[in-house]
Amino acid sequence: MTKLRVAVVGYGNIGRYSVQAVLAAKDMELAGVIRRAESVNKKTPELEGIKVASNIDDLGKVDVAILASPSREIPKTALEYIQKGICTVDSFDIHGKDIQQLYKSLDKAGKEHNASAIISAGWDPGTDSVIRTLLYAMAPKGITYTNFGPGMSMGHSVVARSKKGVKDALSMTIPLGTSVHRRDVYVELEDGADFSEVEKAIKTDSYFCNDDTHVHQVSCVADLRDMGHGVLLERKGVSGNTQNQRFEFKMQINNPALTGQVLCSCARAVVKQKPGCYTLPQIAPYDLTDIDLDEFLLHTV
Amino acid sequence: MTKLRVAVVGYGNIGRYSVQAVLAAKDMELAGVIRRAESVNKKTPELEGIKVASNIDDLGKVDVAILASPSREIPKTALEYIQKGICTVDSFDIHGKDIQQLYKSLDKAGKEHNASAIISAGWDPGTDSVIRTLLYAMAPKGITYTNFGPGMSMGHSVVARSKKGVKDALSMTIPLGTSVHRRDVYVELEDGADFSEVEKAIKTDSYFCNDDTHVHQVSCVADLRDMGHGVLLERKGVSGNTQNQRFEFKMQINNPALTGQVLCSCARAVVKQKPGCYTLPQIAPYDLTDIDLDEFLLHTV
Repeated sequence: MTKLRVAVVGYGNIGRYSVQAVLAAKDMELAGVIRRAESVNKKTPELEGIKVASNIDDLGKVDVAILASPSREIPKTALEYIQKGICTVDSFDIHGKDIQQLYKSLDKAGKEHNASAIISAGWDPGTDSVIRTLLYAMAPKGITYTNFGPGMSMGHSVVARSKKGVKDALSMTIPLGTSVHRRDVYVELEDGADFSEVEKAIKTDSYFCNDDTHVHQVSCVADLRDMGHGVLLERKGVSGNTQNQRFEFKMQINNPALTGQVLCSCARAVVKQKPGCYTLPQIAPYDLTDIDLDEFLLHTV
Repeated sequence: MTKLRVAVVGYGNIGRYSVQAVLAAKDMELAGVIRRAESVNKKTPELEGIKVASNIDDLGKVDVAILASPSREIPKTALEYIQKGICTVDSFDIHGKDIQQLYKSLDKAGKEHNASAIISAGWDPGTDSVIRTLLYAMAPKGITYTNFGPGMSMGHSVVARSKKGVKDALSMTIPLGTSVHRRDVYVELEDGADFSEVEKAIKTDSYFCNDDTHVHQVSCVADLRDMGHGVLLERKGVSGNTQNQRFEFKMQINNPALTGQVLCSCARAVVKQKPGCYTLPQIAPYDLTDIDLDEFLLHTV
């Protein structure tokens, strides 16, 4: 069997766990890791024996690039790879209009350059989106609640960390029930930074301004960091005209580990799709797996 | 917009709820209901104004037939419709080799006659199979437990009712945890029937022989009947090489109402597929919905 050659682009939390997932997949081969030019020669013990480059052209044939870069860099990066004819998967996590735009841009480019992309393929957006879609198909009338946490939001932490005067930051998502959340942001300041300015910069950012956000100054953010996270998805709805159908999906997981695994499973699926762009609910779940069809019909269905 | 013309074949529990689901779907038109010749002229108040026939050729153009007949009749019935070029969906519920066989037969016929089939599209097999597949993709190493009930199994009740000497029967599925179940079968006997013979016939049937099965004689099965059912799916597994990822899917539902709705949503999806046969995890969940793509990217993903 020819193994799928997968590159991981970026080596932060998600990149690290994506590498682990690709190495654990029997049907994949890790083509290498792409890092910024200044980090390529950085000593990283667990990358011993793995090709590290700053340009994907140096990794030989690559079937799929897992884009483990910050969400705000994804639209540009994904487009570059798609234009090279390399399929991409990413966990772009800015809900709403930004997903629409990314979809349109990559769908057009994918069709022009004979490549496919699966976007927003983490767990939310991502596998939670699949559950929401399935529950809608099972009970088309009703309301779905998505309750996150308690847990660290990687996307929100990155944004808080990017603010001027912030040395380190951690954003916790606290579920208040029925899709309402509080954000508790813990910040470690740089010498001389003004807390109230940092607080204001965080609270007015588009990532935070729609939620009740509390910013706390601490001396060491590292001491608070735990990558456990969770979600509770609930739907109460109507099948046909039968009321009160009840559904619940719950998970407690290591957040970047799950994201890395979903990206890896999507790398397997993306090469099976026609050129263009897809979100996770637009992919047949079976395509995410490496299970032989006969075996699948016998044991999973 | 041209509405999808859907026929419902069979008018037992699942047929009745499938009709309700089709009538509630804005993008569908109920072409009619197919009943056995002897039932076509039976007075059925809720079918007032709906075309009832014993032959699908009498319903005009039909895009999809929802097969709401007992599982054991599905292989023959589905094949007949597919050979006429009509797409089918069914909730064939005999796990394992029988699904494999049905898949192969309809896949071949579908490709020959330019039609598609979605098989085993109830909730288990069906939407539960989708969840199991998704959880496998999220944590490829680990064990999934499927715990049913407590609730009436329609398939098992039909089989118990088919035994000689049985006037009416109800089979309850009792979850004992970690995928182990007991079957409590309540039977109302015909005059002169021998309970121990009925008990033996039920316990040795392939539907029952692998479970701890208890058969109880009662004077009136109708008094026990409630169509509520449920499931608890649990997986504890490994994402990449991160252990102890925990997932849970739970629902409490009216059983035939959910099955009817899933069949109806699959009717929408089946016409979007290439000719051949599919199980539910081989279908992109988005195809099950009537949501406009722009709207979907904005609000569901």
